[in-house]
Amino acid sequence: MKATVLVRPKKGILDPQGQAVEQSLRKLGFAVAEARVGRVVDVDVEASSADEARERVEAMCTQLLANPLIESFEIELQEPT
Amino acid sequence: MKATVLVRPKKGILDPQGQAVEQSLRKLGFAVAEARVGRVVDVDVEASSADEARERVEAMCTQLLANPLIESFEIELQEPT
Repeated sequence: MKATVLVRPKKGILDPQGQAVEQSLRKLGFAVAEARVGRVVDVDVEASSADEARERVEAMCTQLLANPLIESFEIELQEPT
Repeated sequence: MKATVLVRPKKGILDPQGQAVEQSLRKLGFAVAEARVGRVVDVDVEASSADEARERVEAMCTQLLANPLIESFEIELQEPT
């Protein structure tokens, strides 16, 4: 089952990459208030149900994909069609 | 208006970061078929309508946020509540 994980820096955590993007966008003439940069991880996980898939992807996030001290994560499951 | 941009390596494009994540997940005991890693950019853009916001964020993507040769992007707009 395919899952998409969005990993973002938590509110209040310094995000130098986001600041760089924000400044570059302004230099290009775009009016932006804020930019934050995180990661998106698409993973194809073996699981017999959506609940099981979500549980496994959550474990992946806490063990590897995200640093819970400074990052939050969000999981979207794509149901097989 | 807040927009979320997902930038991913195109199909067929080598993704070393994704391969590293895939291998690490397997070493941790997770059964994964594939992992791909991209970026998520949250940007707050000034615009008077959703269409205008989308157009501006598209311009940001082609000019700065994504490399159209090797990356695809997807824009999600969060309508103000």
